[in-house]
Amino acid sequence: MKKLMQQIIKLKNPTVVGLDPTLDYIPQHIKQAAFAEHGRTLKGAAAAYLEFNKRIIDAVCDIVPAVKPQCAYYEALGWQGVKCLAKTISYAQKRGMYVITDGKRNDIGSTMQAYAAAHLGQIDVDGETCTPFGADALTVNGYLGSDGIKPLLEILSQDPDKGIFVLCKTSNPSSDELQDQLLEGGESVYGLMGDMCERWGEDTRGEYGYSQVGAVVGATWPAQLAELRQRLPHTFFLVPGYGAQGGGAKDVAGAFDQNGLGAVVNSSRAILTAWKKQGVPGEQFAQAARAEALRMREDLRSAIPALAEQA
Amino acid sequence: MKKLMQQIIKLKNPTVVGLDPTLDYIPQHIKQAAFAEHGRTLKGAAAAYLEFNKRIIDAVCDIVPAVKPQCAYYEALGWQGVKCLAKTISYAQKRGMYVITDGKRNDIGSTMQAYAAAHLGQIDVDGETCTPFGADALTVNGYLGSDGIKPLLEILSQDPDKGIFVLCKTSNPSSDELQDQLLEGGESVYGLMGDMCERWGEDTRGEYGYSQVGAVVGATWPAQLAELRQRLPHTFFLVPGYGAQGGGAKDVAGAFDQNGLGAVVNSSRAILTAWKKQGVPGEQFAQAARAEALRMREDLRSAIPALAEQA
Repeated sequence: MKKLMQQIIKLKNPTVVGLDPTLDYIPQHIKQAAFAEHGRTLKGAAAAYLEFNKRIIDAVCDIVPAVKPQCAYYEALGWQGVKCLAKTISYAQKRGMYVITDGKRNDIGSTMQAYAAAHLGQIDVDGETCTPFGADALTVNGYLGSDGIKPLLEILSQDPDKGIFVLCKTSNPSSDELQDQLLEGGESVYGLMGDMCERWGEDTRGEYGYSQVGAVVGATWPAQLAELRQRLPHTFFLVPGYGAQGGGAKDVAGAFDQNGLGAVVNSSRAILTAWKKQGVPGEQFAQAARAEALRMREDLRSAIPALAEQA
Repeated sequence: MKKLMQQIIKLKNPTVVGLDPTLDYIPQHIKQAAFAEHGRTLKGAAAAYLEFNKRIIDAVCDIVPAVKPQCAYYEALGWQGVKCLAKTISYAQKRGMYVITDGKRNDIGSTMQAYAAAHLGQIDVDGETCTPFGADALTVNGYLGSDGIKPLLEILSQDPDKGIFVLCKTSNPSSDELQDQLLEGGESVYGLMGDMCERWGEDTRGEYGYSQVGAVVGATWPAQLAELRQRLPHTFFLVPGYGAQGGGAKDVAGAFDQNGLGAVVNSSRAILTAWKKQGVPGEQFAQAARAEALRMREDLRSAIPALAEQA
């Protein structure tokens, strides 16, 4: 995740823009053009998503270090949507952005190896090396234990820029049903998961002290964020739940260390639908997204003063 | 999951064939034809997967009730692979099989709704209704709690044939790291997850007494399988780990109720690579798969006598 940290420092901005398109978010002129060319079909919708994503990426790539496309919204358009996901990843990387595929993938053994190759690596087709999706990082779910994480570590060890983020304490209200349960001895489930992240990442620590095995911890749980920051000194956090889900800059401040590093904060809806909230015409959706991304950057900087002092 | 149970009873066979293709499993003649037409590319590999899957489906569709394509292997071929997944699902359904997409998907709210629409439902594209993948059932991961499951229940309530299987006690050795941990009060994590499955499925119970919310419990844990069968009387089980992972018919017998229902047992590798194990030429891979599926059916019938008596 070296590249991600370098970009955060360079842009003094620990933001990731969640690329979670739906047709409701996309202005009429983009949809009309796509439907005119491809019909009101999955292909037409996927064309609208791709155009929308590209313009959002263009609008924020010089101020935001990373994007996080959420697989679900692409899969909802079938394989045409998944093709759009691949093109979105590639476009964002061409514009210099770090790409975290939010797939929350999980499985074991050779199946997890297939996910690792799919999203972060390469696959050999009878002697030809092909890149299926080629993202920089992937979110994963650790419910299956080490058998689900170890197949990813090989890819991480080969490239310091690659990373994974393991679900630890998620932003949603019902995350308490399992994650907050206390184990015999008083440990919480999410605490145990956090400890496993530290251990899984042990051999992949880089120059900023963080490993390539990060954790997902929601902005909606500021106390747990701060607790986990202390407890997991080598685990970089991906923090969803800022903005639309209710978390603010003060809530996420605890995720950062004394150098202003330690986390990247996601915003999806507030940026993608900024044109609606700002009440501007759909043609100005990209400018509106940029304005919201700048507002968020300033909001985060105000709560993380050490970040602005990073060289 | 009504259709699944009806098919199991009709065929007196609680087997699901896991469609987890890799190039290693596919005979040379199929690969050569696909590469000749599409090159040694992701598209070429996807064409080989699809041809392989179709012939496996043809070979078992009159004796096996269901197939379970594992998303990871398709994603490893990029969007071309995901297109192959969609075509595989559609082909299996045309041949009368019940299709469980093994994606272990998990997220919350509108994102989980998108996964539900993607894999089990439909999506509205500006007034046109489109079906992205259209499987009959989906495996999911419940680490995020009810917020990750409830968005699926709406689709289940609209169609008694649809189902989900929530990871409970997985087949892999390290599943103990989290799932076997004991909570304060002595309950295990997988036990808590099992209880949640019963609760989530409460309003979707069908004529056989089972709900549309199933659970994944590995064949490699016979004691836990039997324990969970007693404890979760309305939760249908998807049982991986038979065959290649070490579980046998006696190990899975405890997953079934006194009527011989209650579970469907997966075999992937042993069926897909039967031609290698039987030492027959690659041209006979489909017949070899059928022979292994028949062997497995007899093996399961011998351990579940009540199944053979089902009308």
